[in-house]
Amino acid sequence: VDGLHARALEPLPDVRPGDDLAALIEAVAPSDLAGGDVLVVAHKVVSKAEGRVRSLESITPGERALALAAEHRKDARLVQAVLDESAEVLRAHDGVLICETHHGFVCANAGVDQSNATEPGELVLLPANPDESARRLRAGLPAHPAIVIADSFGRPWRLGQTDVALGAAGLMALDDWSGRPDAYGRELRVTAIAVADAAAAAADLARAKDSRRPVVLLRGLERYVTEEDGPGAAPLRRAREQDLFR
Amino acid sequence: VDGLHARALEPLPDVRPGDDLAALIEAVAPSDLAGGDVLVVAHKVVSKAEGRVRSLESITPGERALALAAEHRKDARLVQAVLDESAEVLRAHDGVLICETHHGFVCANAGVDQSNATEPGELVLLPANPDESARRLRAGLPAHPAIVIADSFGRPWRLGQTDVALGAAGLMALDDWSGRPDAYGRELRVTAIAVADAAAAAADLARAKDSRRPVVLLRGLERYVTEEDGPGAAPLRRAREQDLFR
Repeated sequence: VDGLHARALEPLPDVRPGDDLAALIEAVAPSDLAGGDVLVVAHKVVSKAEGRVRSLESITPGERALALAAEHRKDARLVQAVLDESAEVLRAHDGVLICETHHGFVCANAGVDQSNATEPGELVLLPANPDESARRLRAGLPAHPAIVIADSFGRPWRLGQTDVALGAAGLMALDDWSGRPDAYGRELRVTAIAVADAAAAAADLARAKDSRRPVVLLRGLERYVTEEDGPGAAPLRRAREQDLFR
Repeated sequence: VDGLHARALEPLPDVRPGDDLAALIEAVAPSDLAGGDVLVVAHKVVSKAEGRVRSLESITPGERALALAAEHRKDARLVQAVLDESAEVLRAHDGVLICETHHGFVCANAGVDQSNATEPGELVLLPANPDESARRLRAGLPAHPAIVIADSFGRPWRLGQTDVALGAAGLMALDDWSGRPDAYGRELRVTAIAVADAAAAAADLARAKDSRRPVVLLRGLERYVTEEDGPGAAPLRRAREQDLFR
């Protein structure tokens, strides 16, 4: 095994709603792109291509958004967009809203983000169904590589953000080792490697945050790549009732 | 930039208390190991070399350990070891104890682990001061690479474990971008990349969990490597009072 290699592909042009993202990626992919490769794609270009953007100007905040915005000194229209994307606001503190999205992700501002938006006053949302987006991208690329759609999430207990997998296709997102023996033949403590999250984190190290290089090619993960698209990144979402920290 | 490359070094022999871990690593390191390289070292070999192991047989459980063990059907001696390593038990549910360690890490069983222990009945603890351990390793390697000491932690909200940095030396563990402009010249949302955690996660993808390859060489992170040992992984620990989820 030669290990893991991560390399950012050349920048994409500005992605706008309706663009064929697979074709844009194909144009910058290396000619030897293979089915065992993994492409990690920053969710923003996916959201933009899918029209998952809103303009601040078009939003009329409701009562709850106005109250939260006043309390946390935020733009009430932004807060309304966050509430629209949220199944539940878990914490609101010091200007930060930690929300569970309708998909079941727990993250700041329900993933609604102004940074790296194309137009002033534009909000980028998370893709509506990131696993479906990943499957579509995979189908649209002739080499049929595995796809991970990534975003940066904060963590409780630890500072800083790491990239995690919102969606995936053709990658074993969770490699469950429970019941397998350790190197000394004893049963392992419950151990399941969050492969897709680790792949997203590795990809993030291969590009600078402010560069326009949303796509990173990962090689050396062939053992986790599957012919079927599989369940995507859904196995990484912890069900509410299994969660000790709400 | 040629991206990021991660490669597991050859297996180490069984590490025992008192062993010179830097010398054991030096013996498997490539001859071109450089100061800009990062070595990610699984904490277990560090703990073993430092004598941070206990034998189950030597432990007499106290009252609280006996009660918790009965409630969660665990070995009371193991529970006593977990309590000894814990500043606080945050949750105890279904056989899992989520604890804050004396260092301030929040993890299952306060990091006390039987898997990959050398002897039956041996418990491996976290290093007492992982940043200090990292500095010592760095000083002991002639090429003076950056060091990350890693362990696998579970996450609330997401299933599966990812490797995180317990300790570090010579690596900018947290790359704080807040206030810097995004690719479109607008201020970024609060963004700080947990570089050392992402490095630990990337390294984990380069080795199999059950292999005896505790050391992974990362190349391509030179921009985060510092001449000074720096504050280690401490900047990644979220202070209790900044934590919204306790």
